[in-house]
Amino acid sequence: MTDFGTIDVYVGTMKAVMARLCPRARFIDITHAVQPQNIQQAAFTLFTSFRYFPPGTVFLVVVDPGVGSVRRPLAAHAGDYYFVGPDNGVLTYALAEYEEVAVVELTNTDYRLDILSHTFHGRDIFAPAAAHLANGITLAEFGPPVDDYYRLPPPLLDISGSTISGEVIHIDHFGNVVTSIGEIRRSSSGSLYLIAPFALAGKRQPVLTLPSSVSISLSKLKLARIHKTYSEVPPGAALALVGSSGYLEISINGGSAAQAFNVTIGDPITLQIG
Amino acid sequence: MTDFGTIDVYVGTMKAVMARLCPRARFIDITHAVQPQNIQQAAFTLFTSFRYFPPGTVFLVVVDPGVGSVRRPLAAHAGDYYFVGPDNGVLTYALAEYEEVAVVELTNTDYRLDILSHTFHGRDIFAPAAAHLANGITLAEFGPPVDDYYRLPPPLLDISGSTISGEVIHIDHFGNVVTSIGEIRRSSSGSLYLIAPFALAGKRQPVLTLPSSVSISLSKLKLARIHKTYSEVPPGAALALVGSSGYLEISINGGSAAQAFNVTIGDPITLQIG
Amino acid sequence: MTDFGTIDVYVGTMKAVMARLCPRARFIDITHAVQPQNIQQAAFTLFTSFRYFPPGTVFLVVVDPGVGSVRRPLAAHAGDYYFVGPDNGVLTYALAEYEEVAVVELTNTDYRLDILSHTFHGRDIFAPAAAHLANGITLAEFGPPVDDYYRLPPPLLDISGSTISGEVIHIDHFGNVVTSIGEIRRSSSGSLYLIAPFALAGKRQPVLTLPSSVSISLSKLKLARIHKTYSEVPPGAALALVGSSGYLEISINGGSAAQAFNVTIGDPITLQIG
Repeated sequence: MTDFGTIDVYVGTMKAVMARLCPRARFIDITHAVQPQNIQQAAFTLFTSFRYFPPGTVFLVVVDPGVGSVRRPLAAHAGDYYFVGPDNGVLTYALAEYEEVAVVELTNTDYRLDILSHTFHGRDIFAPAAAHLANGITLAEFGPPVDDYYRLPPPLLDISGSTISGEVIHIDHFGNVVTSIGEIRRSSSGSLYLIAPFALAGKRQPVLTLPSSVSISLSKLKLARIHKTYSEVPPGAALALVGSSGYLEISINGGSAAQAFNVTIGDPITLQIG
Repeated sequence: MTDFGTIDVYVGTMKAVMARLCPRARFIDITHAVQPQNIQQAAFTLFTSFRYFPPGTVFLVVVDPGVGSVRRPLAAHAGDYYFVGPDNGVLTYALAEYEEVAVVELTNTDYRLDILSHTFHGRDIFAPAAAHLANGITLAEFGPPVDDYYRLPPPLLDISGSTISGEVIHIDHFGNVVTSIGEIRRSSSGSLYLIAPFALAGKRQPVLTLPSSVSISLSKLKLARIHKTYSEVPPGAALALVGSSGYLEISINGGSAAQAFNVTIGDPITLQIG
Repeated sequence: MTDFGTIDVYVGTMKAVMARLCPRARFIDITHAVQPQNIQQAAFTLFTSFRYFPPGTVFLVVVDPGVGSVRRPLAAHAGDYYFVGPDNGVLTYALAEYEEVAVVELTNTDYRLDILSHTFHGRDIFAPAAAHLANGITLAEFGPPVDDYYRLPPPLLDISGSTISGEVIHIDHFGNVVTSIGEIRRSSSGSLYLIAPFALAGKRQPVLTLPSSVSISLSKLKLARIHKTYSEVPPGAALALVGSSGYLEISINGGSAAQAFNVTIGDPITLQIG
């Protein structure tokens, strides 16, 4: 996952470096269209996808506005997964899922390319580290442990009485507006619970029962309930539903909610209960 | 093949699910840029590409405006290939190539993810089914046979006397305008035959000999013959030729015909003979 | 690498053809976003990335404005690598790295698809050749040797006294402006050398020591020194640095230099020493 886009050689060159060091490696692109240098969007994107990958997967996440400066290059091990990326918070939400996380700084020059550029550590430091991890090199061989790695603050999610305040955290290809409000789970008795993500990551306690009647405000849009599927409303109508990642989304059946309501990442959303 | 685009985690997550279930699976992206929810374009896109794939390929086609509603999830077996997708017609033109087609509904919950979302059956139902098919699970194990799966009507292709009416069915990256008129084949005597696609899919009888002199109308453009290669006309000039999929295309040598003549998918095209 | 984009089936179909002929082949996309038919940009793109790939890699490069005309289809062997593409110069800069290069014309019809289209030799001629090369078929089996393959002239790079004139050769996803001026290497004594690329490719003699104080002109922008990293200037400020491919780049820390200074490929850049 990167913010490199796919018009340049950057992603292909990183794969080339990894294929050279670990010939049996296979690559799955999560996305290369993170907004340039948007670390929070990258962290959220990783969080919503990483748990579907096979055990042993090495996640290489290069969204790195501080490339060439003093920020540390890191590798991490948590649960069945490995992670490689800069020490700027991109791994925060994924790592917060685990009680035990091991993190090291990538200082061992044996596991880098011979010549380092100042602007493309993805190719020169991070991709080689990911390949060597895939080859079974243990975390400790890459460098000293790091405890004070940078943690991103969680996205806005404030629960005050019956009012939940969140923010738009992603807008997808279809114009669906993904918010920080979620996730909703069904209890053993069948009622729904709202889970505050990130803030409670790793604990996942239900904090709130969501009633059937709500009031949602996003930009000029008001909605009175949460639907299950797009087809429950007529084509062209707006609706709120719980998206595939467990977060509240605002959509238009067959259209783009982001375009219709002129929404951008960071916009506030309010959900009122009762 | 999907209409998911590549800015989101959707495609990567589907591959992750498949890699987990079928570790030896390898992925080839046909395209993820089908116009959102344009089932006919998806069906045509699959039709023009599937026959080049190796025997045993499982085609996973998720263009699914009815996700979460009552439309059935399907798997199919035809010739050397397997297909997975929603029951909305996306497989129509590919399956029409075969005399014998086996189709089942994906009802067996053993071959789905444990928790189903309402909005992302690509990840929760279709990708797991594709992976299990690649693992050798037989079609019958997924669910009951389906005979009345939805067939898309063929694109417009009307032959009336010496006039052939078709429609624009795809516009490619270069601005080449791909029409429903095709395909043209050379007989043993060297003359050209026009084949009505889709309408005659599976039979492929020549229905018309195409003379050297024709009259083509698309928007304000008039063309008097069919060329073989772009370089037969000067740079910047418009031409008609039979494209790489066997369909009549309108192009500009070194330019974008779609832009120059303001053409969109669905526009009518007429070919007059003699 | 192609200029096909990723909205069409073209790239997927080429991979399908290769997977059928060479089932163990694995694919790495360098880019499919070369400007349509921009051969020089393609040649530069290949040049900056190919050396990171594993030995034995077959590079399939289809940027082919003359498809269907008389230009020859070629395969080449140089060093540890193989190359396949049209005889229009796309391989020039990569091949110029090697003293010994073997090139053949792809005339053997055993290594093509049975039916050739006039517009998609990528699928019908080049992809099959790449797959057969990956299978170990020797170069000589594809066709007769070619000595007079077309060499692209190098990008503009004129060194006149203390003035170096170059041109913009690529604009990346972030808006970084990549120029033909480079590459700069550090000698054993620690001083910097400017290498004229392409013109001296294969020799790589240092031709000029670059002093610390320079004067750079690009469009209306003037810069007085070359930095090492983006973070050496404040966010939003412009800077010059040596990019990850070894070429002089003009950037904005956290922004798009191409947009801010309205730069396009081919624009002149001047570097004045002293």
